[in-house]
Amino acid sequence: MNQFGRLFRISIFGESHGPAVGITIDGCPAGLPLSEADFEADLERRKGGQQKGTTPRKEDDIPQFISGLFNGKTTGAPLTILFPNNNTRSSDYEKLRAVPRPGHADMVARQKFGGHEDYRGGGHFSGRLTVCLVAAGVVAKKLLAQCKVEARILEIGGETDLEKGLQKAIDAKDSVGGIVECSVAGVPAGIGEPFFDSVESRIAHAVFSIPAIKGIEFGAGFAAARMFGTEHNDAIINAEGATATNHAGGIVGGISNGNELRFRVVVKPTSSTPKEQATWNLGSGAVEPFSVKGRHDLCIALRVPPVLEAVAAVVLADLFLEQSFIPRIIS
Amino acid sequence: MNQFGRLFRISIFGESHGPAVGITIDGCPAGLPLSEADFEADLERRKGGQQKGTTPRKEDDIPQFISGLFNGKTTGAPLTILFPNNNTRSSDYEKLRAVPRPGHADMVARQKFGGHEDYRGGGHFSGRLTVCLVAAGVVAKKLLAQCKVEARILEIGGETDLEKGLQKAIDAKDSVGGIVECSVAGVPAGIGEPFFDSVESRIAHAVFSIPAIKGIEFGAGFAAARMFGTEHNDAIINAEGATATNHAGGIVGGISNGNELRFRVVVKPTSSTPKEQATWNLGSGAVEPFSVKGRHDLCIALRVPPVLEAVAAVVLADLFLEQSFIPRIIS
Amino acid sequence: MNQFGRLFRISIFGESHGPAVGITIDGCPAGLPLSEADFEADLERRKGGQQKGTTPRKEDDIPQFISGLFNGKTTGAPLTILFPNNNTRSSDYEKLRAVPRPGHADMVARQKFGGHEDYRGGGHFSGRLTVCLVAAGVVAKKLLAQCKVEARILEIGGETDLEKGLQKAIDAKDSVGGIVECSVAGVPAGIGEPFFDSVESRIAHAVFSIPAIKGIEFGAGFAAARMFGTEHNDAIINAEGATATNHAGGIVGGISNGNELRFRVVVKPTSSTPKEQATWNLGSGAVEPFSVKGRHDLCIALRVPPVLEAVAAVVLADLFLEQSFIPRIIS
Amino acid sequence: MNQFGRLFRISIFGESHGPAVGITIDGCPAGLPLSEADFEADLERRKGGQQKGTTPRKEDDIPQFISGLFNGKTTGAPLTILFPNNNTRSSDYEKLRAVPRPGHADMVARQKFGGHEDYRGGGHFSGRLTVCLVAAGVVAKKLLAQCKVEARILEIGGETDLEKGLQKAIDAKDSVGGIVECSVAGVPAGIGEPFFDSVESRIAHAVFSIPAIKGIEFGAGFAAARMFGTEHNDAIINAEGATATNHAGGIVGGISNGNELRFRVVVKPTSSTPKEQATWNLGSGAVEPFSVKGRHDLCIALRVPPVLEAVAAVVLADLFLEQSFIPRIIS
Repeated sequence: MNQFGRLFRISIFGESHGPAVGITIDGCPAGLPLSEADFEADLERRKGGQQKGTTPRKEDDIPQFISGLFNGKTTGAPLTILFPNNNTRSSDYEKLRAVPRPGHADMVARQKFGGHEDYRGGGHFSGRLTVCLVAAGVVAKKLLAQCKVEARILEIGGETDLEKGLQKAIDAKDSVGGIVECSVAGVPAGIGEPFFDSVESRIAHAVFSIPAIKGIEFGAGFAAARMFGTEHNDAIINAEGATATNHAGGIVGGISNGNELRFRVVVKPTSSTPKEQATWNLGSGAVEPFSVKGRHDLCIALRVPPVLEAVAAVVLADLFLEQSFIPRIIS
Repeated sequence: MNQFGRLFRISIFGESHGPAVGITIDGCPAGLPLSEADFEADLERRKGGQQKGTTPRKEDDIPQFISGLFNGKTTGAPLTILFPNNNTRSSDYEKLRAVPRPGHADMVARQKFGGHEDYRGGGHFSGRLTVCLVAAGVVAKKLLAQCKVEARILEIGGETDLEKGLQKAIDAKDSVGGIVECSVAGVPAGIGEPFFDSVESRIAHAVFSIPAIKGIEFGAGFAAARMFGTEHNDAIINAEGATATNHAGGIVGGISNGNELRFRVVVKPTSSTPKEQATWNLGSGAVEPFSVKGRHDLCIALRVPPVLEAVAAVVLADLFLEQSFIPRIIS
Repeated sequence: MNQFGRLFRISIFGESHGPAVGITIDGCPAGLPLSEADFEADLERRKGGQQKGTTPRKEDDIPQFISGLFNGKTTGAPLTILFPNNNTRSSDYEKLRAVPRPGHADMVARQKFGGHEDYRGGGHFSGRLTVCLVAAGVVAKKLLAQCKVEARILEIGGETDLEKGLQKAIDAKDSVGGIVECSVAGVPAGIGEPFFDSVESRIAHAVFSIPAIKGIEFGAGFAAARMFGTEHNDAIINAEGATATNHAGGIVGGISNGNELRFRVVVKPTSSTPKEQATWNLGSGAVEPFSVKGRHDLCIALRVPPVLEAVAAVVLADLFLEQSFIPRIIS
Repeated sequence: MNQFGRLFRISIFGESHGPAVGITIDGCPAGLPLSEADFEADLERRKGGQQKGTTPRKEDDIPQFISGLFNGKTTGAPLTILFPNNNTRSSDYEKLRAVPRPGHADMVARQKFGGHEDYRGGGHFSGRLTVCLVAAGVVAKKLLAQCKVEARILEIGGETDLEKGLQKAIDAKDSVGGIVECSVAGVPAGIGEPFFDSVESRIAHAVFSIPAIKGIEFGAGFAAARMFGTEHNDAIINAEGATATNHAGGIVGGISNGNELRFRVVVKPTSSTPKEQATWNLGSGAVEPFSVKGRHDLCIALRVPPVLEAVAAVVLADLFLEQSFIPRIIS
C-alpha cells in the first residue's frame, strides 16, 4: 500500500505524467506553523540543482495546500499537499512501451497490473513521487525541533570526490551509483520497541520505499562482521547511557540509546543510461539493442540526501508521537 | 509493537526466564497439515547444535499447540504455540543488574520501561524469542510450497571457512560476527508494491526484528555503488521477464520480477564475550571492569540462518496472501 | 485517523470551506473502467435534490481525477479524486465563532485541536466530506458487480410518509431525524471473521463515520430483545445455508451466511435548526440565546441513503478482497 | 483478524474445547500493578453466577500469566494470559455435527473454513472467549483509573424485572434476549477523531465482537429519529463544554465532549434453546427437527455486562494512549 506510519501517517499518490503528485499526512499535531517557504530548501536540494549529472526536467515544485492548514498553522486534520506536474513530455515514453527498460519497473508493473498501469515516465513508480516524501519530511523535521537530521553523500561511483565520480560516468557515457549517510542528533533514549517495531525495522522499511535504494546498514554495519565483540560493543560511560563509541548507530535492542542515529544506504546506478543496452522487445519477441532517450540523472544518489532525511524524520516523528515525546497540540 | 503482517499476522510474547515464550499466527489458511515433526528440523538448526561457539543452554523446544490446530490441520482460527522455558538460571543475571551490559538492551530497557522490565537473561529482548520466529517460519514455508527458502553463512569473523573464523574468537577469548545470505527460489513476478510495501521494505522490516542484525543488502547490494548502470541492470531475456543476471536480487521497483530473491545480512558479534570489558556501574556510579558469566554464543551468526529463512517466509506468505497466490483453504 | 480499510483503503481529507475535499483509494484492483458519468447518479442523490428540507448550498460535485486512472481504467495505483469547493460563504461562520453550536463539533474541535481547527462551516467535521465517501462507494459498488446495495428511508420525523415528516419540521421551524435501512443482496457466505473483524464490526465502524448517525441494528436488531430464541433463530433450509427467515440480517457469528445483509441506522435531527436555542457564549461567558443562519438541511436523513450504501460497499469490497472474491486485475 | 487496537492492542485465541483460551495485550504501559485478585470480580460476574438462566458449565477461570508481568507489575512487554479449559464435554457436540444449529456459526464456519474448523462447542466462535475480553477489560480499567465504567441490564425478555423476564423463558422452555446499557464517567473532552476513528466507530467495532450483540445506540439512540433538533441538541452550559442534557451520549462529531459516555446494546436470545427446532440436516439432506442438549444459558444478556464494560475500557485505553492521556510508564 502507499501508506506508512501509525500515528503520523503518510499516504502518497500520483504519477509522473498525471496532473499532479501529492501526499496526505494524517495525525500531524495541530498548531504547527507551516508555509510555502518551509519547503523551499529541501525541495530545491532534491532537484539536484546545478550539479552535472542531474536531469534537465524542471518542475517548480511549489506546494499547493489542499487541506489541514488554516491561518498558517496545521489544524490537526489531514494535511494534503499537491505538486502539479507541468513539465511532462509523454511522447518520449509511449514509443518505448514495447521495450521494458532493464532496471526499471516497466516489466513488473505490466505483470502486476495487467497492462493497466500508467507507463508514462515510470508512472506511479517514478522518482517524481519523492517530492512528496520530501514534503512529508519538511513537516516531520519541524515536529522534531530538538533533532538535527542530516544526510550527506559519501561516495559517487566509488569515489569520495564527487566531481571525480560523476566524471567517470560522463566519460563512460554511463550512470553511476553511490553511498549516502544519514545521522540524527538529539534523539532521546527509549524510542522504538524490541522486535517488529525496532528503530532499525521502521527506518529500513521507510528507506526501502525510496526508489533505487538496495541496502542499508546501521552504525558499523557490514564492517561489524569482521569485528570482535569487545571492539563492537559501545562501552556505557555515564548514568544517561552515553557511550564511548557508536558502533551501534544509536540503536540497541531495537531501542534508541540517546546517541546519534547513524545509517548508510547504497543507491544503485540510474537504470536509464545514455549507453546502448540489450533487452527483450515485446514487439519483436527477441532481445534487441535499445537506448534510452528521455531526461535522466547520471547519478540518482545526488538527489537522495533530502529524501533520506525525510523518511528518517517521518519515522522518528511517528515514534516520538507513540512515546508522547511530541504533544498533540503545538503551542 | 510485537506484531507483524497484514493478512498473515504474527504476534510474539514471552521472556527468556518466564514460564514460556510463544507466538500467535493469525490469518493462517485453514486445512494446512501441521505436526510437531514439522518443526523439528528448523528448531534444531536454530540451536546451533554441535558447532563450537554455540551456547550451552539447552531447551527441548517442543511446540505446544494451544489453539488453531484440530485433527492435525490448521483451522483458520489463530494458531498459538508455546515453548516452555525449562532451562533457566536466573541467579546468573540478578547480581549483574547494576551493570548494564554494553551491546545489550539492559540500559535502554531500563530507560524505556522505567525499571519495570524483566531483566533476567535479557527478558523480552532475549534471542530466546527467535524460537517463535522460527516456528512461524515453519508454518509460512509450508504455505509457500512452491518456493525454496534457504539461508547460508557466508562469513564468520571475516573468514569464509567457518571453523577458522570461530577459532579466531576462541583464540581471542572474544566473540565474532558474520554475514548470512538468504535466497528464495520460486517467487512469481508481481508481489510487493511500489514505495512502502516494496518487497525490500517488508523483508527489511522483518529482518531487523532479529536481534543482532545491523545491515541488509539486496542483490548486488553495496557493491552497486561502484557499478555502472549498464553493469548493474539485469537485461530481460524473455517474455516472462527472466533476466540474464540478478543484480537486483529479484526485486525491481519494489516488486518481485520472477527471479530468485537474494539478500544478505550482517550479524554483529555477540555482545556477551568472555573477555573483560569496562562499562558504567549503576551501583558505584563509575566506569568499572566486568566480565559476563552466563551461557552465551561466541557467534550468533551460526544460529541466524533458520531465523532469517523464517522471517523471509513470513513476509512472503503475507504478500502471497495479499495477491491471492495462496488460497484461504488448503485442500 | 482519516483512513479506513485493510486492502481497499480509503483516506479522506479536506474542509468545508477549503479549496477542495478529496479521497484517495488505495488497493483498488487495476482495470476497473471508471468515468465521471459513473459518479453522477450517487452524487446527485446525495445532494438531496429537489426535496424540501435540503440545503440550498449547491456544488457541482464533478470528480477531478488526480491519479490512478489511465485510459479510462484504474491502474492499481492510488486513485485520488478531488471535489473543489466553489460555493462557500465563510463570513456566515466567522461571526458565530464565539458561539459553539450545540450538537455540532465546534466545542470539541476547539478542545481537541486547541483552537487551531478550521472552524468555517464545520471545517473537517463537515457533512461536505460525505461527498468523498459517496465517491468511494461508487468505485466499491463497481467492484461488487454481483451485489445489489440499496438504502432507503424508512422514517422521517417519526412518519413513514416522508412529506408528512418534513412538513412537521417546517411547521415547527425545527429539524427532524430519521431512520434509514440498507440491504445488500448477493453477498456470498463466508466473509468476515469471528470477533474483531465480524461483518457487523466492520460495517458499524464505517457507518459511525457518517456524521449524525447515532445507532445501528442488524436484522431484527433491537426487536430481538423481545423475541424468544426459537422465534429469532433462522432455520437453515438447504445445503447452501439459505434460511427461512432473516432475523440475523445475513450475519451469523460475524460471518455472512449468504442471505441478504440488512441493517438500519438512526440519523439524528440536523443540529442547525431555524429555531432559537440557548448555549454558552464564549465571548460573554454566559448562556445566551442564538439562532443559526447559514444554509442547512431540515433533515439530514434525506441525504444519507447514498452515503450509507457507500460505506457498506467500501467495507464489503475490502472483505471480498481479503477472501479473494475480487481479483487483483479486472479483465 | 483476532486483533484489535492501535497502541493498546489485544489479540485473542483459543477454542471452547481446546487446551486453553488466551489473550495477549501489547502496548500496555509498564509499571501497572496486576495480580490474580484483580481479575476475580469481573471474571465472576461474567459467569452469570447464581442467577437462574445461566449455564451449568463451570470453569475456575484463574488467569495464568505467561509473559509481561514481573514482580507484580506489567513490564511493558506483551502480557499474555491463559485460561485453561478444564470442563469440556466434547461428546455432546460431535454427534450434532450433521446438524448446523440455527443461530450458531456452525454452518458459516464450515463454509468459511472448509470443514477444518474445530466445531466442538462452537470452537473459536464460542462465548468462552469472552473470558479473554473480560481479562483485557480488567487491565484497561486499571489504566483508566479516573473513569468509572459500568454496565447494567435494562431489559430481559422485554421485562425490566429481570426475574420476570427469565421466568418467561423458563415457562416457554425457550431462551430470551435483553438490552444492556454501559456508561463511562470521567472521560475528558477530546478523545476520538472525526470520521473513521470516531468514538462511536471504535466502540461499535469492539462491541460487535461480542457474540450475540445485534445493535448499538449512543445517547438518545433510535429515539432521536423522532425528536426535533432543538430537543436533541445538548445545550452547552459552561466553558468546559458541559451540557444540560446528554442526548449525544457524550460524543459529538465523533469526539468525546466531557459528558458521560452512554450507549445501549441489544443481545439476541440464546441460539441454543431447550425447545425443539427444525433445520437442515447435512446427513439426511432434509429439514428435520432437532433439539439442543449441551449446557447453555437461557439468556446470554445476563453475562454481557462485564464483557461490555471490558470492550469499552479497551477502546478507551487505546484512545487515551493516542492522546497521551495515559503515560507509558505508570509510577
